[in-house]
Amino acid sequence: MSTTDFNTLPAHVWPRNARREEDGVVTIAGVPLPELAEQFGTPLYVFDEDDFRARCREMADAFGGPDHIHYASKAFITKRVVNWVNEEGLCLDVASLNECKIALAANFPPSRMTAHGNNKEKEYLELCVDNGVAHVVLDNEGELAQLNEIAAAAGRVQNVMIRVKPGVDAHTHEFIATSHEDQKFGISLATGAAFDAARACLEASNLNLVGLHCHVGSSVFNAEGFKLAAERVLALYKRIHTELGVALPELDLGGGFGIPYMEYEQALDVASLAADLLAAVDRTAQELGIAAPFVLVEPGRSLVGASAVTLYRIGTVKDVETGKAELPIRRYLSVDGGMSDNIRPALYGSEYDVRLVGRETEATSVDSRVVGFHCESGDILIDERTLPGDITTGDLVAFATTGAYQYMMSSRYNGALRPAIVSVRNGDASLMLRRETVADLLALEAD
Amino acid sequence: MSTTDFNTLPAHVWPRNARREEDGVVTIAGVPLPELAEQFGTPLYVFDEDDFRARCREMADAFGGPDHIHYASKAFITKRVVNWVNEEGLCLDVASLNECKIALAANFPPSRMTAHGNNKEKEYLELCVDNGVAHVVLDNEGELAQLNEIAAAAGRVQNVMIRVKPGVDAHTHEFIATSHEDQKFGISLATGAAFDAARACLEASNLNLVGLHCHVGSSVFNAEGFKLAAERVLALYKRIHTELGVALPELDLGGGFGIPYMEYEQALDVASLAADLLAAVDRTAQELGIAAPFVLVEPGRSLVGASAVTLYRIGTVKDVETGKAELPIRRYLSVDGGMSDNIRPALYGSEYDVRLVGRETEATSVDSRVVGFHCESGDILIDERTLPGDITTGDLVAFATTGAYQYMMSSRYNGALRPAIVSVRNGDASLMLRRETVADLLALEAD
Repeated sequence: MSTTDFNTLPAHVWPRNARREEDGVVTIAGVPLPELAEQFGTPLYVFDEDDFRARCREMADAFGGPDHIHYASKAFITKRVVNWVNEEGLCLDVASLNECKIALAANFPPSRMTAHGNNKEKEYLELCVDNGVAHVVLDNEGELAQLNEIAAAAGRVQNVMIRVKPGVDAHTHEFIATSHEDQKFGISLATGAAFDAARACLEASNLNLVGLHCHVGSSVFNAEGFKLAAERVLALYKRIHTELGVALPELDLGGGFGIPYMEYEQALDVASLAADLLAAVDRTAQELGIAAPFVLVEPGRSLVGASAVTLYRIGTVKDVETGKAELPIRRYLSVDGGMSDNIRPALYGSEYDVRLVGRETEATSVDSRVVGFHCESGDILIDERTLPGDITTGDLVAFATTGAYQYMMSSRYNGALRPAIVSVRNGDASLMLRRETVADLLALEAD
Repeated sequence: MSTTDFNTLPAHVWPRNARREEDGVVTIAGVPLPELAEQFGTPLYVFDEDDFRARCREMADAFGGPDHIHYASKAFITKRVVNWVNEEGLCLDVASLNECKIALAANFPPSRMTAHGNNKEKEYLELCVDNGVAHVVLDNEGELAQLNEIAAAAGRVQNVMIRVKPGVDAHTHEFIATSHEDQKFGISLATGAAFDAARACLEASNLNLVGLHCHVGSSVFNAEGFKLAAERVLALYKRIHTELGVALPELDLGGGFGIPYMEYEQALDVASLAADLLAAVDRTAQELGIAAPFVLVEPGRSLVGASAVTLYRIGTVKDVETGKAELPIRRYLSVDGGMSDNIRPALYGSEYDVRLVGRETEATSVDSRVVGFHCESGDILIDERTLPGDITTGDLVAFATTGAYQYMMSSRYNGALRPAIVSVRNGDASLMLRRETVADLLALEAD
């Protein structure tokens, strides 16, 4: 990698309002990152609000309007982000009782919420019914019966979808594949169980079946898996129409749109994927002789992933003689975070783009590894990368594309305090979540 | 697995005071687990206090006294466990600024504490000096100079050890190996850097070098790696004695003693390992013509790992047609926790012993997978196991050996509330950490 390259922020990976200014400092929405590090400390998450809102609008435009888009809040949920989603007119997916409670605490309208989960407790189902959550996505037959009872007891009719397994496997990594048959989510299409569940829903006194839901995988970069799943699910719509006399009005194709984490990866053309997918749904419906349902999608990572960066301060720098002929010296750069705020490299082998953000560099690159402060040898954020040889103690670096599935999976390992989160817009920074304190670490102690 | 086996709790894996009572219920220290689940909810960690204390005493006996044993608090640290360690007369290792603060908050005597870390911030070093922490284990040359300055400014002399890389790799899993050269911790023995650092320590005005520290790996089941590391490190003691005229009084051989997680795994004979190791140190010292140093070890997992179990309630039960010829039907058992409270199966492929604890079973076993409630297909706690076919919704199960590196790495993913922790002793249960609440989830929000 040339040094010129290292000073450039790859536009498809970094927040849209990130810039390297003439003085060498990186700003987001006009706010210098070193100033944020100074004011709020490190590690620090910085969210580019306009980046997130722009992606929401583009996703909405691609699929025909904001009511087609359900933000998958499991990727990143705080009250502020829930408010942004609300203001942009999108709908909201929650995947658990407490995600639902956080969304309600932020006054998100339940009439635009969808509730997911493979193991929903009674309290979760009751909360949905009592608040008028728009859709409950049924995972299994037992839940169907339980929800019907709860809705009946409340004197309500609950709108539901059924999560079906279309048997399509568009995964990019074994651990984040979710659409093959041998998995915990949903009801099989192939065995006929999904049809039986649809009939049970239609027969249930207090459930109103509005459509079927499927999910083909995570980090998917083309429409093929979605189209194949849609074809299979629509065949069941046809059967339900023919045998049960009901035209289901909605079709939820789930989430999973991939984003580039590294410069060499390509961004997904969402507009083109959406057009391709919607055309396939229309065509298939026409071929089957049924009305094309209203299509919903559930992006999480593709809306919020690239909106944030994580700032770290470099601590220990160490040149290690590896004893390996192919790489005799490796530079170890330690940061003041690690596997506590980003478990994804250890868990999924994920890679991230890192840059110096306090200054430019013209230094020659050296073989490097970026590690955290944790007392664990697997605490590696970047395993192998050539990085400028002048990166040194006190330098400020940022990891891009850290908006999704990162803070949400953060831990307090080795007494790590969860980082603060700020959002920036039009030259201003505003605290979203404060940094944890040692008092927080001790707050659960009974003695 | 026969059903008789499933009702039996493998003694080398379960807490020592766990029993299956005549009514079929499992108790720990006389406290029925179903009563704890009722009182404190699930998921719930249950720590057997006497089990932990007994392991502390046995480890102390094996190595010649409690002052040889430094409990590695990163495995599991709360004020109560720190108090147990204190009462048993052991020393305490901390691996970060905040572990140090938690230990001090529990009034653990700094004179029995050792401070570790590959990226210690200035505040951490200052805290150690100001409180008189017994040993600071120096990771690198920069830290050596910084600590000397801090100690000088405070008008104190700080006892230190140097973490050296002995080039011994006794690992059992790539991600938890820590003693080869190509890693972030310590200073190389082989390159001569460790000798140079020892000289720099001895020349530093405000540092007192008391010994060297090494760590050969995690989950190690025999003495060979420790013995080889001790031989190599003692050769440096000899050189330091000969060339610098100083006999280092202590030798810290680190942690890493393995424990069985599964019934088919053998327990380590700590007494025999210790005797073997201490004899080797004495023999080597004698051969080198130096005084045998006082040996320290740093067990974490081997003291606390088997002291705890995690209780879960079974939710969704689903028989899935896998489409795989070799295993056509797999039963999915969902629990009310998952990767948020136990990331180790996903992160390290770790296996756990699970049992029904509310009742016995005589049912035939079926091919099963145990999953959590998280909206993630990798949320799998037990990938493949034959488990009794009558396990059903509402049943209470416990995972054994969940004391180490589990709660400490827990997250709030999908709005998971960190479980409560209770300790039990002599028929009584006492809350150690309360369960998190939704208010806790929202407590960091700035809006």
